[in-house]
Parts: sequence; C-alpha cells; structure tokens
Amino acid sequence: MTKQKKLRILPLGGLGEIGKNMMLLDYDGQGIIIDVGIMFPENDMLGIDYIIPDFQYVIDQMQQENLTIHGIIVTHGHEDHTGAIGHVLDGIHAPVYATSLTAGLLEVKIKQSGHRDHPLHVFKAGDVLELGPFRVETFHVCHSIPDGVGLGINTPVGLVVHSSDFKFDHTPVDGWPPDFAKLAEFSQRGVLALLADSTNADRAGWTPSETVIDQAFDEVFRAAKGRIIVATFASLISRIQQVARAAQRYGRQMAIAGYSMNEYIKVARTLGYLDLPQDLIVSVEQANKMPPEQVVIMATGTQGEPSAVLGRLAWGRHRQLEIQQGDTVVMSAHPIPGNEELVSRTINKLIQRGAHVIYDPIASVHVSGHASREELKLLHNLVRPKFFIPVHGELRHLHQHSQLAQELGLPAENIAIVENGTEILLTADTLEVGERVPGGYVFVDGKGVGDVGPIVMHDREILARDGFLNALVLINKATGELIESPEIISRGFVFLRDAEDLIEMAQNLIGDVVARHKKGNLTKEIEDALYKMCYNETKRRPMTFAFVREV
Amino acid sequence: MTKQKKLRILPLGGLGEIGKNMMLLDYDGQGIIIDVGIMFPENDMLGIDYIIPDFQYVIDQMQQENLTIHGIIVTHGHEDHTGAIGHVLDGIHAPVYATSLTAGLLEVKIKQSGHRDHPLHVFKAGDVLELGPFRVETFHVCHSIPDGVGLGINTPVGLVVHSSDFKFDHTPVDGWPPDFAKLAEFSQRGVLALLADSTNADRAGWTPSETVIDQAFDEVFRAAKGRIIVATFASLISRIQQVARAAQRYGRQMAIAGYSMNEYIKVARTLGYLDLPQDLIVSVEQANKMPPEQVVIMATGTQGEPSAVLGRLAWGRHRQLEIQQGDTVVMSAHPIPGNEELVSRTINKLIQRGAHVIYDPIASVHVSGHASREELKLLHNLVRPKFFIPVHGELRHLHQHSQLAQELGLPAENIAIVENGTEILLTADTLEVGERVPGGYVFVDGKGVGDVGPIVMHDREILARDGFLNALVLINKATGELIESPEIISRGFVFLRDAEDLIEMAQNLIGDVVARHKKGNLTKEIEDALYKMCYNETKRRPMTFAFVREV
Repeated sequence: MTKQKKLRILPLGGLGEIGKNMMLLDYDGQGIIIDVGIMFPENDMLGIDYIIPDFQYVIDQMQQENLTIHGIIVTHGHEDHTGAIGHVLDGIHAPVYATSLTAGLLEVKIKQSGHRDHPLHVFKAGDVLELGPFRVETFHVCHSIPDGVGLGINTPVGLVVHSSDFKFDHTPVDGWPPDFAKLAEFSQRGVLALLADSTNADRAGWTPSETVIDQAFDEVFRAAKGRIIVATFASLISRIQQVARAAQRYGRQMAIAGYSMNEYIKVARTLGYLDLPQDLIVSVEQANKMPPEQVVIMATGTQGEPSAVLGRLAWGRHRQLEIQQGDTVVMSAHPIPGNEELVSRTINKLIQRGAHVIYDPIASVHVSGHASREELKLLHNLVRPKFFIPVHGELRHLHQHSQLAQELGLPAENIAIVENGTEILLTADTLEVGERVPGGYVFVDGKGVGDVGPIVMHDREILARDGFLNALVLINKATGELIESPEIISRGFVFLRDAEDLIEMAQNLIGDVVARHKKGNLTKEIEDALYKMCYNETKRRPMTFAFVREV
Repeated sequence: MTKQKKLRILPLGGLGEIGKNMMLLDYDGQGIIIDVGIMFPENDMLGIDYIIPDFQYVIDQMQQENLTIHGIIVTHGHEDHTGAIGHVLDGIHAPVYATSLTAGLLEVKIKQSGHRDHPLHVFKAGDVLELGPFRVETFHVCHSIPDGVGLGINTPVGLVVHSSDFKFDHTPVDGWPPDFAKLAEFSQRGVLALLADSTNADRAGWTPSETVIDQAFDEVFRAAKGRIIVATFASLISRIQQVARAAQRYGRQMAIAGYSMNEYIKVARTLGYLDLPQDLIVSVEQANKMPPEQVVIMATGTQGEPSAVLGRLAWGRHRQLEIQQGDTVVMSAHPIPGNEELVSRTINKLIQRGAHVIYDPIASVHVSGHASREELKLLHNLVRPKFFIPVHGELRHLHQHSQLAQELGLPAENIAIVENGTEILLTADTLEVGERVPGGYVFVDGKGVGDVGPIVMHDREILARDGFLNALVLINKATGELIESPEIISRGFVFLRDAEDLIEMAQNLIGDVVARHKKGNLTKEIEDALYKMCYNETKRRPMTFAFVREV
C-alpha cells in the first residue's frame, strides 16, 4: 500500500502572528510560497532591526527531497508580506507573482537586494496562475493598502481558499468593493479548506468602512485655524487620497514630508492608485511660506518612531519643519501593540510645543484594515468550507476565530490551530496536524542575518540592565605583586565620576585577591569577587571581566 | 507695598502623569504634602526598578526659606500614591495622615524603610484635619481600591477641592457611594479652585460601575468546567470580593496565590475591608487536591510581569501550580500603557498550555477606576469652581480635561495646565502659572537612589543595542612591538564563537595601528579604529575600549 499523498500547508516564522509572513503549500514535492514578509522586533529584542522567517528548512528540502517551488505569490504590499523578498530570493530561486502596486513596491526591494533580473510577474485580481499542480484563482480583497488579493487554490485534494489580510468594505476609497461573487462561486464548487485572517477575531461587530473617516476629516478641516498635519502609514494610500480630497474641499494645498511616504506616493501615482492633481501638491519649502490655513502636511511617524517626521517634529529635530502654536496634528493610525508608550510620549511632546492633537478615541480618524467578527461570519457563510485553518493573528486570535467557526456550526475536529513551523496535512477527506519542522525566526541586525542568537541577546539584556566592569590586572612576575593599581573601565553600571569609593573598593579587592591567590584560575577569582562586591554594594549585577597578565 | 501672599500649588516629579505622585501646597511658608508615590519605569528606562519624585527642592526650602511641612496626606493606597513614603520620610519629617486601609498599607512601608516610630495618624473620610493654616475636609471617593478620599482644603485664599483618583460609582462593591452631598456643599460655600483626576478625560461617557463585572463573572463561573484562575491587581480589593461572592454562588472555594496578593488581603481583612468567610478559603496545596470544578484561584500578573504568579504559570515556572487543559483564566485588568506586548505574550503562552483565556474585549471582566467625561462634567457642575487645574494624567489628558471645562463654560484663562515642577499661584481673585523649580525625578536602581542619570542611561542604551568590545594591548617598551596578539573581550555585539574572522581582523588592525603610531593618544587611536572596523563589517556600533600598556 503506498502512502496517500497529502497537501501540506506550512506556516513559517516562529514569532507573533501565524502564517502571516510566509507560508509553504506543497503536494508531492511541488510547492508554492505565499508572502515573504518581515516581523518587527518586540521591545525586549534589543538592537534588532527586523526579523525574517527561518526558511532554511525549505531550502534543505529543495536540495535533499526534490521539493520544487513553482512560484512566490505576494498578496499585498505591506512590509510584513513583502519585506523579506531579498533574503528569500538569496536561497529560493522561484518567479515572483504580484498585482501591479504590490509588484511596484517589490521591485525596489528586489533590485536593492541584488536580484535585478529576477522574474517578477504582474497579474490582475481575477487572473489565474498555473503553478505546478496548483491552479490559483486570484480575487480582489479590500485592505489598508490597495490592490490586495485573496487566493482560491485548486489543489489535487480540493479547493483551498486563502483570504489574506482583508476587510469587507462596501464603500472603499478606491471604489473597488470585495469580490463577493467569487467567494460565493467557490462555495458552489465546494471548498475543502478556508485559511482566513484572524487579526480582529476578538473584535465584535463590523469594522467601519474607510470612508467613515471622511466625516472626521471634514470636522478637522472645518475647525482647524492653522496648519493641519496628518500622520499615517506611508503605505496607507487610501488615507492619503482621503486627505487630498479633504484638502481640495477646504482649499488647502498638500505637502508630503519624509522619504518613505514620498516613495510610496511616487509608486502609487505612477501606477494609477492615487489621484493627486499636480496643482494640489506643494513642496515642504513652499508650504512653509504659505498662510497656515492653506496648508496640509502628510507625514509618517504614527508609531512614535523618533526618526520619523512626526517624531522629529515632536522633539524639535526636523530640518525643515517645526510645530507652531495653532497647528492641528491628526494621528490617523492606531498604535501597533508595543508602541503605545512611544505614541503617548509623542502626542504629549506635540502638545507641549503648542499643537492640538487629534487621535482615537477623541475622534474616529482611523479604522482597522482587518475584518471583525461579523465580517468573519459572513466570510465563513459565503465560503462554507469543510475544514478551517485560522491564520494571520496571534494564538489568542486564532482561538477566538476557531470559536467563531464553531458557533457557526463547524465541528471542532474540522479546525486546525497550529503555530508557525507546524505542518497541516490535508486530503480530500481529512485534516491533520503534522510535524514540527526545524527552524523558527532569524534576527537581522545591521549587516548580520542570524548571527545574533539567544546568547548575544541575553548578554544585551544584562548589559542593558546593569552594564559591565572590566579590570586590567598587571602582576610582577618576580614578586607576584600588582605592578600598578588596577585600571577599571565600566559603562552602564554606576556613573563613575560619582563612584570613586566603588572604584577604590574594587582596586583594593583585586589587590586582596591577588595577594591571597595561591593556585587556580586567578582571572575567574577576580571576576567573581568583583561581581559579589558590586552586588553587595549596589544590588546590581553588572558583567565583570578581568585581563590578568604577569609581566 | 508688601507683596501679596499667594497659595502655591506645586506638582512634583518630572515624568508621566502630572500631580499624581506628590504635590506641595503652601502659603506663607506653611505647607502640606499630598501623596508620596512612585512612578513606574518606561520600556526604555533600562534596568530601573522604580522612579521617585525629586523633592530635594522642598528640603532645600525647608532648610533655607523656613518652609514648614505640617503634614503628609495620602489619599489612597495605590503604589503611585504611597510607594515613595520611605524616601520622603528620609528628608521630610512631617506626620502622615491616611484613612484606615491606606494607613495599614503605609505602615508596612514605613517600618521597612526604618522609620518605625514615625507618626501615622488614621482618619475617617469626613474627618477634618487642621494642618497649619489649612483646614482639610476629607470626603469619601470611589476608586479601584477602598477607602480613598478627596480633599476640601480651606486655605487663606479660599477653598481648594482636590478630587484625587475617583470615579462616580453609584453601586460600588463595598456599598459606599461617592459623597455627592459634600461636593454640593463645597459649591454652596464657593470653591476657589478644583484639582481633578484627568486619567480618562479622553474617554466619552460614564465609566461602568464595578458591579457590572458581577454579570461577566456569573457567565464565566456558569460556563467553566475546570478550574478558574482570576488574575487582577493585588490592591483591587473589591474585585477579590466579587470573585469571592461568585465562588460562593457557584460552590467553589478560593485559593490565593502569590505574596503581594496575600499581603493586601491580610491587611484588608484585618481592617474589615474584605469579607472572606474562613470556609471559603483554601490553601494552594489544598486546591491542587480538589476537583477542578470546585476551585477558583486568585493571582497577580495581569501586566505580564514574568515573575508574578500568572507569568510563572504562562512560562511553566511556578513551584506549586501549573496550567491544566480546561483551566479558565480571567484577565481582570487592562494592560497599563507600555505593557501591552508582555500581556499579549502571556495570554498566548497560557493558551498554548491549554487554558481558555478571557480578557477584554472578549468579555467585560474589568472596568476602569477613573471617571470618564460625563462623570467629569458632573464633578465640574457639582463643584462649580472659579479656577480649574487638571491633574492626574499625561499632558494630553489635561488638555482634554481643560477643553471639557471650557465646553461647560469656564473661560480658558481660568484654567492652568502645568507640568510637574511648575508652580501655580492662587489668590482669592487670580490664578497664575509661576516658576519652574529645579529638579525632576530620581531613578531607583537596586540600592542606588539617583546615581543612575542620563549618562549611565545612554551607555545602557548603546550596550543594549550593540554591546561592547574591549582589547588588551601589551607593547614591548624596548621594541615598540606587540608582546602578544591582543586579547579581546566582547559581549552583546556578535556571538564570538561564530566570529573568528572578526576577532582576527581586530587583532591585525590593532597591530597595524600600533606599528603606524608615532605620537599622540594610542589608546584613542585603537578604540576609534576598532569602532570603524566594527561598523564597516557589521553596521553595528558597539562601544570599543582598549587597555594599552608598555611593559
């Protein structure tokens, strides 16, 4: 009896949201990859720039098991779906498929990473991609960046529908509503499994349409006597469009501050995703010379990033702009979990400089790009899958999404919740959780990819908390006595100019240890003695080191 | 003409919420202090245990200007109002006044800090305290700890009403509603100034009563098949009472896990603020032997603190307890801003271990202890002050509170928003913002109070991000050549076992610098060269040091 062939679904990456950044689908050695995104470091991941999924396992299987990757499909242009493209192409040489805006944003990254001539195929939502054994029917979804798609993947075991990140917005800013018909058609043909966005699975109700923000902007523009500064994500093209329209309604001109927002706008305008009349746009320099009530400035920095435009304005460190009494600042984004503290600080600093700051909950100047529970229920009832795999969320969101599916009548045994790195295996009749594959995630720090691991991280934690202390101990080979009073370098422990007593104690202590020492590891004895002394005197635990030489 | 005497109000501390942790009121050299709390470090205050207000200025004025402090009034028992009592008593020897529960909690701290015989006067809400020129009428307020008071301070220039932290709860768990009559009576006598809690000044509506939680708990207790673990703040006595009552209704017994919660409960039971029948309580050991459906466990750790009970359960590191399949964990608290990431991680870990976790927004298992906008409007209209000083909130909350007061008809010039450390001066007719006094806040790290300043902090940031590298460079005095290949100690930079090339490059580089060196500071030359090499090779910026000796 031969082993039955199964469709394997493998979410990759080890951290945070499941299946969001990268996913492998394969059947009998023929595979595709969906999305190639980065993760953002948490507050205690010290010094890390960003994190990429660990796809070494995929590369190993390509080399050892004859796994073939027929294509990499990128569902939309957000960093957590596109940002790792360069790293992935270093190891996996498969053609990339994306819609026009997504491809425009990917192109820059692909070139920068040195894969200039790598095949990048542009498709339109509705197009069908033939990739090995998979016939992928793409369909339009609404999200907080234009031109996103979901996937109806016809596999040898059945039809698998992947929602990607989505919301059901009946009145999206770009006028392109979700493709309900396609979802209904899938269900008529019979859906084996649904993979669906769980980000807001713990939010009751229906996520408001993007266009509800128009009303809040109307109120802001009507009330503002001075300049208006709207901060949002550089990729939130629809929000930029909404601000542009409000500016036109209220006779203001728009300046765009900051590199990344200018880059996104450039790509989106070139490809026709953003309609900004030329006479609406002014440079920041021009805006500075105009009457304040005729100006609106678009900026990044809603997450409190000190180096973004808004952060530099809050701390008075922007080259061209500064906050003036009477400015209205609109925070048109919610803090991403973990950023709340920095965001609050930024708002307080802006107020300190004289700005009036509008943020949720004061006014509804932002809505989520993800479906809430009522939308998820509609998705489930439209698609009516046999099996359900919640994805795109933390474990708690997947559990809420699973409970929602059960409330709609799906048996618990037809639902699989896994974490990144665990396989799900599907046949036409069965759903099972497979193996945990090796790997997790990879830290990127500066030029280094994966060279910062748990040990370096742990050292950084200790250094961050209590610093270090390093002593130079030179001993006269003939007499066994110290040649000089030990020099001590210390940072992050105590402020040394205030701590002469402590330094003197350390020097005396080293003298005692050297005098007492008979045999064994003198370096370790000194380091241990210094550590104990530091803890007793300060209740802090710095790292202690000694260079010991007999000369 | 003599200078008119003025009442001075001076919020102390430099960080976060204004006037919350400590405040000085004085008139003609006669003063009182309101609250003596600690601040909690933000995520980027590396290694800091807690923060206290800088009250050196008060001590200086006591010594140089004949300022007399007649009393320290503590309005309620939360750490951000009580936690610095030991530090304050080190420098300011004034009697302490508090209600019974607050005094019970203060007593422990006062003893621990070595001020065993310091006078601590217990009063009841409604009592009047005569402190120098001030006649302080205390009145009951509802908040998330019992026995809180607000203050009606009769001063030589007029009546100043201080709300302290409060909400208007018509159905509090302890059956003791707010003292509306007293507030109305104040307004009949005429209120010069109102100082009021602004924490929720950006929240619309009315904060729900504590008792709405009973319904959510009823649902949890009805549905739970296994153990129930309720996590909340150790000081949230009313929540503990609610869980106890639910346990009685549903035939469960209650165990209390963790030192701090046991301590709070002991004080609250002894003083009659918590009614826990003896047959309701079991030890954790007993609970472990009981059928799961007969147990509820109270625990701390709602902020994701890894060392609290819930954190240890989430990471499987608790001595006596572990999460079982079928446990229901209730997070009966909201994350304090800055803790969201840790809280999410804790919830995910608990789910991973098989718990069903209930948290807001899934169910209303927590309500705020602070008044929302409609309550604030009622306070303003009850008290009808001439002047208004928003306190207890970040700058953005004070601004929202100021706008609310203006919506109610108070002229903007009758409102003073200041940050901590800035004086407000009041006469019977005038309100003005005075000077910024010296000082800010003081870091407490281990035994050290104030010895970690901006320089140590900045060093910790660099070490946290990129670590350090320290070289030992021994040179032959006669030949000017290296005696040995330089030894290098590095932590937090790269994982050295993987970085042999980098070490070799550093050693060769030092050799080159030594060989090239003619005059000047060789140590600095080596350190600079190492720094540049590290940056070029890794795009990281570790601190670099060298010990250089000719021997």
